[in-house]
Amino acid sequence: MSSPFPPDSVGLVVPQRMRFEEPLELASGACLPHYELVYETYGTLRPDRRNAILVCHALSGHHHAAGYHSDDDRRPGWWDNLIGPGRPLDTRRFFVVCPNNLGGCAGSTGPLSVDPASGQRYGPDFPIVTVGDWVLSQARLADRLGIERWAAVLGGSLGGMQALQWTVDFPERVRHALVIAAAPSLTTQNIAFNEVARHAIRSDPDFHGGRYYEHDAVPATGLRLARMLGHITYLSDDVLMARFGRELRDGKLNFGYDVEFEIESYLRHQGESFVKRFDANTYLLMTKSLDYFDPAAHAPEHSLSKALAQTSAEFLVVSFSSDWRFSPARSREIVRALLDADRDVSYVEVESEQGHDSFLLEVPLYHQVLRTYFANIPLAGSPQ
Amino acid sequence: MSSPFPPDSVGLVVPQRMRFEEPLELASGACLPHYELVYETYGTLRPDRRNAILVCHALSGHHHAAGYHSDDDRRPGWWDNLIGPGRPLDTRRFFVVCPNNLGGCAGSTGPLSVDPASGQRYGPDFPIVTVGDWVLSQARLADRLGIERWAAVLGGSLGGMQALQWTVDFPERVRHALVIAAAPSLTTQNIAFNEVARHAIRSDPDFHGGRYYEHDAVPATGLRLARMLGHITYLSDDVLMARFGRELRDGKLNFGYDVEFEIESYLRHQGESFVKRFDANTYLLMTKSLDYFDPAAHAPEHSLSKALAQTSAEFLVVSFSSDWRFSPARSREIVRALLDADRDVSYVEVESEQGHDSFLLEVPLYHQVLRTYFANIPLAGSPQ
Repeated sequence: MSSPFPPDSVGLVVPQRMRFEEPLELASGACLPHYELVYETYGTLRPDRRNAILVCHALSGHHHAAGYHSDDDRRPGWWDNLIGPGRPLDTRRFFVVCPNNLGGCAGSTGPLSVDPASGQRYGPDFPIVTVGDWVLSQARLADRLGIERWAAVLGGSLGGMQALQWTVDFPERVRHALVIAAAPSLTTQNIAFNEVARHAIRSDPDFHGGRYYEHDAVPATGLRLARMLGHITYLSDDVLMARFGRELRDGKLNFGYDVEFEIESYLRHQGESFVKRFDANTYLLMTKSLDYFDPAAHAPEHSLSKALAQTSAEFLVVSFSSDWRFSPARSREIVRALLDADRDVSYVEVESEQGHDSFLLEVPLYHQVLRTYFANIPLAGSPQ
Repeated sequence: MSSPFPPDSVGLVVPQRMRFEEPLELASGACLPHYELVYETYGTLRPDRRNAILVCHALSGHHHAAGYHSDDDRRPGWWDNLIGPGRPLDTRRFFVVCPNNLGGCAGSTGPLSVDPASGQRYGPDFPIVTVGDWVLSQARLADRLGIERWAAVLGGSLGGMQALQWTVDFPERVRHALVIAAAPSLTTQNIAFNEVARHAIRSDPDFHGGRYYEHDAVPATGLRLARMLGHITYLSDDVLMARFGRELRDGKLNFGYDVEFEIESYLRHQGESFVKRFDANTYLLMTKSLDYFDPAAHAPEHSLSKALAQTSAEFLVVSFSSDWRFSPARSREIVRALLDADRDVSYVEVESEQGHDSFLLEVPLYHQVLRTYFANIPLAGSPQ
């Protein structure tokens, strides 16, 4: 029987699971006695193990980056347009690994998991994890997979921040870092939006201090609001205008509070579907991880350039012109710090109307850049 | 006893109240059988009644634009830095009128008022009013005050939209229109933010379908969220960064959800104090009025220029460089439409880091421009 999937798709994939018995000391001082990471892989790890690439997911992402989970699955992984045989991240050459982050809600140990100390779900007791904690947990996954050094670590948004942190925390283990639609830290405005989202979730009466599982409840209102707000910041003003404009669903004003403008319908739908697939406690801690991200925190004079001076990766930094969540100016801060530290960096500012979401989309120049970049990562016989 | 107020303050003011017995037909088709407007005035109406200026308030504003309500009142009106003897809007020359809008919660007929049809508070049954409805109600106030033609109508944000609507609906009654930090209509993103705010209020369990008064409740959580979100859009990213940065209240991360960053503390405080002074039903209808604003709606080809062709006012349009709620580009749309319609318009784009809030602040160039503009409005003996 022929495959129901396109020939350049990775096709059917099955998530894998790795259990770690050694305790993980977190930046907060808390300790996870043991934990599991769920992850997917695409392509084949070569015997020399030099073709491995780590993909890090963003705020609401997960380990299912490419391919399909069943023959009738119509929705491929979130970065499927990038990853596959013949696609920019070509799985004929590379072995791609994508884990669900600790604290996530897609299978890795997180608030939904049972706390061995209490025998109950962690819920709000799951410790706040940092980007550095994720990198450490991913490094252990790499150890177990026998990957000493990644050919590349990449991600968009919060995923790009993980790629950057990798180069600081494990400079010898990253040959290339692709930092896409990211920032060296959140602005006050970024933190402010996160705080409103958290406030919405935590003030929902169904939140029950985070123990909503025990009440057979879900803080749906708060999580819906958080996602609606998020969506506004993921898209540019222009693309919202082009896509929804001021179109009225009934073609006229109704002088009431039901959906009138098409954008209202879109936001409510996005909020609603998010509630069905995402856990509120995970959303809370992921936004904290964003707020806390600061790879320069431990560098002399809080200098990003000094923090990056110890890195040895080659960098590709990509930003999108209409991204106002993590604007090109923020990417240029990373580039400037790398140049000041005399590191090897390429930078591309891609013209795109799609805002922050661009990193998920098949923007032609963007994909061409990544295709060329990956094609030029040497594998066989080349110096590491 | 000497006055406790600065010599260029209008000093003590007492709100006034006007009752209108004639029914007001609203754009929605609803009708207010009778209504009241509360308003303040500053300065003296000259016998020829040609020195009257109308100040229109914004989303969360009210009639108390200048001066103080008691000798120990430490908080003057919201536009006090602009209005007073010797201030840019000089009350030695001008008679300034500022009403609370219909649907408001500061004394004019609105959701808090008793519906004569039911004997209960209007609450959610108060009809959604439009900018055009406000202008009509203000025109009737002008009639009653014997003001045939305003020397100027002005306002910032939603107030500026009212000034613009005045010139379209009553072209002969406005000599000068000052449209400040406004837009010819909301963008999709503007509507989206309003929708999230409304959703927060309406999904608060204490909202009770808008009949929270009857339940002795207030949808505090929703209104707080709405205001927190609003505040982010009123301020520029830069001014937030300059004012709050990434400062931590305790000087270190606490790995918890209590206030950590100073910006979180600021937003929660702003939200909290707003809940104490503002009515949720009013907030809802004010945001709808913003969403609906479209002075070009009835013009041929929905053309703003054609809508403005019938106006006879002289215009001053002012925008602020860092305003991303109603950006300078939106003000330039108004200016371009006025130029296309061969109207008399001046435009100033003021450099300011304070974002949308700039229109309330004493930004030097801004105040100089207004001072000069008002000083050059002729009063005595000049042609109307």
